[in-house]
Amino acid sequence: MSKEIPYKIYLEESEIPTSWYNVRSDMKIKPAPLLNPGTGQPLSLEELSPIFCEELCKQELDNDTAFFPIPEEIVKFYKMYRPSPLVRAYFLEEALGTPAKIYYKFEGNNTSGSHKLNSAIAQAYYAKKQGLKGVTTETGAGQWGTALSMACAYFGLDCKVYMVKISYEQKPFRREVMRVYGADVTASPSDTTEVGRKILEQFPGTTGSLGCAISEAVEVAVKNEGYRYVLGSVLNQVLLHQSIIGLETKAALDKYGIKPDTIIGCAGGGSNLGGLIAPFMGEKLRGEADYDIIAVEPASCPSFTRGKFAYDFCDTGMICPLAKMYTLGSGFIPSANHAGGLRFHGMSTILSQLYHDGYMRAVSAKQSEVFEAAELFAKCEGTLPAPESSHAIKAAIDEALKCKETGEEKTIVFGLTGTGYFDLKGYQQYNDGDLTDYIPTDEELEKGFAGLPNVEA
Amino acid sequence: MSKEIPYKIYLEESEIPTSWYNVRSDMKIKPAPLLNPGTGQPLSLEELSPIFCEELCKQELDNDTAFFPIPEEIVKFYKMYRPSPLVRAYFLEEALGTPAKIYYKFEGNNTSGSHKLNSAIAQAYYAKKQGLKGVTTETGAGQWGTALSMACAYFGLDCKVYMVKISYEQKPFRREVMRVYGADVTASPSDTTEVGRKILEQFPGTTGSLGCAISEAVEVAVKNEGYRYVLGSVLNQVLLHQSIIGLETKAALDKYGIKPDTIIGCAGGGSNLGGLIAPFMGEKLRGEADYDIIAVEPASCPSFTRGKFAYDFCDTGMICPLAKMYTLGSGFIPSANHAGGLRFHGMSTILSQLYHDGYMRAVSAKQSEVFEAAELFAKCEGTLPAPESSHAIKAAIDEALKCKETGEEKTIVFGLTGTGYFDLKGYQQYNDGDLTDYIPTDEELEKGFAGLPNVEA
Repeated sequence: MSKEIPYKIYLEESEIPTSWYNVRSDMKIKPAPLLNPGTGQPLSLEELSPIFCEELCKQELDNDTAFFPIPEEIVKFYKMYRPSPLVRAYFLEEALGTPAKIYYKFEGNNTSGSHKLNSAIAQAYYAKKQGLKGVTTETGAGQWGTALSMACAYFGLDCKVYMVKISYEQKPFRREVMRVYGADVTASPSDTTEVGRKILEQFPGTTGSLGCAISEAVEVAVKNEGYRYVLGSVLNQVLLHQSIIGLETKAALDKYGIKPDTIIGCAGGGSNLGGLIAPFMGEKLRGEADYDIIAVEPASCPSFTRGKFAYDFCDTGMICPLAKMYTLGSGFIPSANHAGGLRFHGMSTILSQLYHDGYMRAVSAKQSEVFEAAELFAKCEGTLPAPESSHAIKAAIDEALKCKETGEEKTIVFGLTGTGYFDLKGYQQYNDGDLTDYIPTDEELEKGFAGLPNVEA
Repeated sequence: MSKEIPYKIYLEESEIPTSWYNVRSDMKIKPAPLLNPGTGQPLSLEELSPIFCEELCKQELDNDTAFFPIPEEIVKFYKMYRPSPLVRAYFLEEALGTPAKIYYKFEGNNTSGSHKLNSAIAQAYYAKKQGLKGVTTETGAGQWGTALSMACAYFGLDCKVYMVKISYEQKPFRREVMRVYGADVTASPSDTTEVGRKILEQFPGTTGSLGCAISEAVEVAVKNEGYRYVLGSVLNQVLLHQSIIGLETKAALDKYGIKPDTIIGCAGGGSNLGGLIAPFMGEKLRGEADYDIIAVEPASCPSFTRGKFAYDFCDTGMICPLAKMYTLGSGFIPSANHAGGLRFHGMSTILSQLYHDGYMRAVSAKQSEVFEAAELFAKCEGTLPAPESSHAIKAAIDEALKCKETGEEKTIVFGLTGTGYFDLKGYQQYNDGDLTDYIPTDEELEKGFAGLPNVEA
């Protein structure tokens, strides 16, 4: 007989993984390389180094090393909030009346409120080790900016955050948390950068986008001595750091002899999804196991389900490298009524390749159904989820209800990336009936695609 | 050699206490009984029952039973967020350079953001069991109201919350969380009650107080069929439920053979402090161990350190029973610049008696030093604390710094009652330099004392 499963499975601190796992090492078809937008050639370490910390550039370019040892100082910091619990959603299962067994890996137990801290502390560590003064970045919903602020405060680094204007205005308290941690926060697009001024001229009154904010942050990093740019998602290095989510999840499941059938993660740039699925995808790639892996994205920003798999700029200002990914075009800006994160126009090149090659599938969810799932979850499980995370909740509920119909006792694991304490504006709009479901038309998407650069690797 | 202490000590779910501990059973001098304000006589079960649920009245009046078994349904709910971690503050110790060993019991790992849920679920359970339609209550900083909303949503009870007006205005998102959980929230004083209208007439433009909000909530409970009033602090029953904090803390310490020297809790009405210290105080009362037990209160609402030990009303409207406690007078309203909770004019009768009899001591802290401690803690330990909890942090840091001077390796345990995600307004004011340190003058306090009823038990 199997052991009784507790509500929360906590690993011991000694069981915190000591290496990150690089899923690229097991991919037969590697993710396409980043290209220099000027030459159309793959970027070298030398070309990347003025933008990113050197150690991180190496991680970015390394498709072969399977495991990267986690530096001791990072493991120490991880102990501040890790291991995170793998929760058996008994209350939710009961409410749904499903025979499915639902688990979620909860990454919100830290003040940044999300999984983003896993990579923020790594990136800050390498910046410190390189002797830098500080780092620049962008933030959308604010989770990444908060995480980076915490990480920079820990290592005594300066932290300049460009925050998507709509979030900056709607989330003054998110700003304030960053300020508590000593960060310098600017609403983007701003007049503090060339690219910001250009975007403001072209789109006066824009509510901003991650793509704009990235352009500004990169410009500031490149133009200031002793600074580098850091990014909270999309990049290979970020997925590498986030593999700790999946490694812990797998260790916790293994401890109780549980084999999941379905693994679900929300997908914006792909950092949470890529991290959660990493070791499971590794098994799948090596032919050792099979899993139904599902990416969930907002219907209002549907890069997987309606985007093109093509080379594109990672930023609106078109100053960043080109990445081959599922993209809506770097000019795509989600509707202003889109609440929360998951608003990036593209997707991790790793995940894009895996999706293209049929190793995972993708679904999209409308805002209203996402908030509906979020409120049910909050009532059952006692945690108010972030709107981003609630996309995964919605899909997990759908899968569990399918099991109710078929009678299958599937084991479903999803990533609960964070808490929604700074997203109450969205909840308020939902409860007031002011949250409409925006879905871009084909014509709108075509406009985005028209801006794709003419590159084929 | 002793075992290595992890950063976080988690008990197993099977180690969640199955009984609450009633510290009154070990008190030689029992807390004075609640009095009927009309007759001046101790309140009977019959007189209390129209206000509180019957089972809770019994708990309120029982000074003898040492352990109350926790009903299974409550233990099940506790598993949603308990056991809570006992955290070794390694990062804070390092930052302070102290030889002291600092631990904190973290009660903020649930959406209500505080320990209040421990009693809320118990009170909702007994209301449900009694077949009631709903409950009414007041809330100050909003933690109790949120906790009660969650508990009522779980049991399908109606929940009417009177929220101190200044918090209602400063914390729209706290309101919104309660709304997600289906509660009905009214700013107090309001024109929905007789007592509210009277207070508004007497003090137009008042920012409200817990005392006012209690009066309103009690009135609504008594006047509506199928409703009872519930309270988040002060009462004996609440301290009983909150003993789970101390029981878990003690179990976690015992597991590693740790004996604390100093135990510190913030004190508003006394629910957290009373809960945290319960089993330790029991040992002290029985002469089995000695501990330095410290209550920390705001200098702006100093009931222990500057109040009178006397019978007083628990509410401003003077419709509630009289309790013998350290009090500033039921007419005392903390300065509008006072951020966060801990704003009740009185104090738990249990704690008042224990303090009066010399079993614990009390200190007060000014707002600015409390926020200073909070920000240091947030940077070191990665958790943004509630302003209330930060009073305990401030005192723990002071004790740890004394150890640094003397070289003593004391073990200090404090209660981190909750998170500050809904208190960013206070942090903002602090960082903007707008948070002044209000300390009531002796003359102001005399005014409050002048309103004390003329009763001696």
